[in-house]
Amino acid sequence: MSTYEPVAIDHERTASRIAADVDALAGPEYTLASDAICRYAYTAVYRATLDYFTSAWRDLGFTVYEDPVGNLVARNRAIGERAFGIGSHCDSNRNGGKWDGTLGVVTALEICRLNLELGLDLPLQAISFLEEEASGFGQMVLGSRIVAHRVDELDLRERIRAIDDGRPFWQHAKDAGYEPERWRECAHILDDLIGWIELHIEQGRVLQDSGNRLGVVNAIAGYVHGDITFQGRADHAGATPMDVRCDSAVPAAQTIVELERLARAAGKGTVGTAGEIEVRPGLINAIPGHTRISVDVRGPDDDAVHGAVVALREFAEEASAKRRVTATYAERQAVPATPMDGRIVGALTDAAAATDEPHMSMISGAAHDTMCIAGRVPSAMLFIPCRDGLSHTPLEHAEPVDAALGAEAILNAIRLVTAS
Amino acid sequence: MSTYEPVAIDHERTASRIAADVDALAGPEYTLASDAICRYAYTAVYRATLDYFTSAWRDLGFTVYEDPVGNLVARNRAIGERAFGIGSHCDSNRNGGKWDGTLGVVTALEICRLNLELGLDLPLQAISFLEEEASGFGQMVLGSRIVAHRVDELDLRERIRAIDDGRPFWQHAKDAGYEPERWRECAHILDDLIGWIELHIEQGRVLQDSGNRLGVVNAIAGYVHGDITFQGRADHAGATPMDVRCDSAVPAAQTIVELERLARAAGKGTVGTAGEIEVRPGLINAIPGHTRISVDVRGPDDDAVHGAVVALREFAEEASAKRRVTATYAERQAVPATPMDGRIVGALTDAAAATDEPHMSMISGAAHDTMCIAGRVPSAMLFIPCRDGLSHTPLEHAEPVDAALGAEAILNAIRLVTAS
Repeated sequence: MSTYEPVAIDHERTASRIAADVDALAGPEYTLASDAICRYAYTAVYRATLDYFTSAWRDLGFTVYEDPVGNLVARNRAIGERAFGIGSHCDSNRNGGKWDGTLGVVTALEICRLNLELGLDLPLQAISFLEEEASGFGQMVLGSRIVAHRVDELDLRERIRAIDDGRPFWQHAKDAGYEPERWRECAHILDDLIGWIELHIEQGRVLQDSGNRLGVVNAIAGYVHGDITFQGRADHAGATPMDVRCDSAVPAAQTIVELERLARAAGKGTVGTAGEIEVRPGLINAIPGHTRISVDVRGPDDDAVHGAVVALREFAEEASAKRRVTATYAERQAVPATPMDGRIVGALTDAAAATDEPHMSMISGAAHDTMCIAGRVPSAMLFIPCRDGLSHTPLEHAEPVDAALGAEAILNAIRLVTAS
Repeated sequence: MSTYEPVAIDHERTASRIAADVDALAGPEYTLASDAICRYAYTAVYRATLDYFTSAWRDLGFTVYEDPVGNLVARNRAIGERAFGIGSHCDSNRNGGKWDGTLGVVTALEICRLNLELGLDLPLQAISFLEEEASGFGQMVLGSRIVAHRVDELDLRERIRAIDDGRPFWQHAKDAGYEPERWRECAHILDDLIGWIELHIEQGRVLQDSGNRLGVVNAIAGYVHGDITFQGRADHAGATPMDVRCDSAVPAAQTIVELERLARAAGKGTVGTAGEIEVRPGLINAIPGHTRISVDVRGPDDDAVHGAVVALREFAEEASAKRRVTATYAERQAVPATPMDGRIVGALTDAAAATDEPHMSMISGAAHDTMCIAGRVPSAMLFIPCRDGLSHTPLEHAEPVDAALGAEAILNAIRLVTAS
């Protein structure tokens, strides 16, 4: 690596090409809504987006194909030859902005352009994963989970259904012209990869608030998603003395406060959030007989995460029992933390340092397709700031010059890895 | 009063007549829904219900009229002659049962029948108040508030609007054939009353759980209804470290717990409830940027009620400030407690004791039309048990024999008051 000399790119030109792609994909043929980006798997606007990228990569001489469920792959080497993987996803949240996911695919495309223009001839394979946002079928990182065989056939045939019409994933995939019965073969899209880097907006405020332009991700937080349901009795708020109440909202409220305390006490980057609170009957003059809170606990340390969840469940049960309320925990999903590969992280850190722009190491609190890739391919991620940490909203904004800086760092990181 | 000899009635016969009326008024021509009683002011089913009572009272020789907004009055004496008032309301909650309100009017009708059958010749005036349940126009005890001049003309012309079509009360009243421009004259329906007793289901569990069949109400709780809105920042639940969060749900949750503590600490029958909790964006993976809780504090002691509300507001502001969240309190309504009249309460207590059935003194935590009457007419209320304290639901149930017992007690209480 001592012989390594980073290439410099024309940031302005790369930023303007990235901006042009991002803006083009915010046009009316690529979104179901005029006031937000709404682009879900297997819709016509999603198809148009894949066609946009397919055409752009073919113009660069890449071979482009889609796997049996619709993950898009573009390569500048023959199948069977080693290549470095880059990319992200191009579906959106239900009320999305134009940067989340799409910027990672657009930047991957720009890296392929730069590779050609600068005569680097790096072996590259780009991927745009299907259904990362759970906006079509309610399942996060579904495309990369299929690639990683983190689903089973019954999930795809029956359990996973479209939010809008309730029909199975399987049927939608067939209607869109895919071959879901060959889903296991999707794993092969990773066969030739010697590494993987995904660029993404941070979706938090850490980079903005610390003044860093690049964040090298060294771990993706694991998470536990669940619900605690508190069942009491819905009596009249005026006619029921305090001593005979079974108010489900009170132990639920105590549990929300305790979740904050437990997450802080766990440390190690652990965070805890109750983002959904539902009370029934939900009237000012009725004691809540039923309260449900969602529980989201995350962090790079699985023991800290699970310890907090266990303690929270016990707390909820005890607080409820004191009020003749029952508390029932149901897990939605538990995903372990994903450490990034030290060699790829190191190369990306070196390349980030070579830009002479402020950068930092960080964890990703949000889930990304890279979680499903990292088990088979040495992986890392690169974050760029997004304004005020906003994502999953039309207000989401990132700076194309930061993405250009990221493209340069990724390009040099790939050179480091492939040269060594 | 020493000469008083209580009359005894045939409980079975009275119970079966009360049951027949209640069941008749649960028929399809008296409710908008088949699975609940849905009977709102100025609907055709409400009109049919007034017609049912009008016809029944006319059969007993009563003079029946409606005041300028539709409060129904039935008298067995000429206008200007003194009479004792009895009654309740016959509109329902949006998902109502057949007992709440209607039972009080049905029992008043039965008392008028008994008065005739037993040859007592008591001077009686029954009232069925308009829009007690807020189900037509979102305003509780509206008919009796108009009678009490606790509204102004702008309220009726503009501010108070139908839940279903948003048109003003005024227009609905005119369309139904009333003369809202004469609303101030509604006050006259109380001019001749020497006393007032309203029978109602308890809407709580106190009578059932204590094994009492009658509850003599000595005060109606006052209440404060308001909302506290907590404004923080809606960041990504995974990507936002604990230290930089502005999670509005946490101080809201602390405030819910504190409301319980403050109500208990206030004592004197004070109760506190957060029945509505609304979080936005309301997603498992988003920190709640906005949380609203409703606040319902009630009790017979106004100082205790208002003291708890003031302390709660201060607590909410302090808890929020610690998390860079703001808390804003907005009052919906504040109604002072209504003490019942000692003489009417005493007569009702004596009459209840004369039944030899278990009875008790209690407060009403719920609001009732009697709150608006008591300022002009010496008033009391009589509660009978309802099963499991359930009301405002089709599951609501009361025993006609308890209502018959109540009819006997009211009849004797009126005899006591009018004889003395």
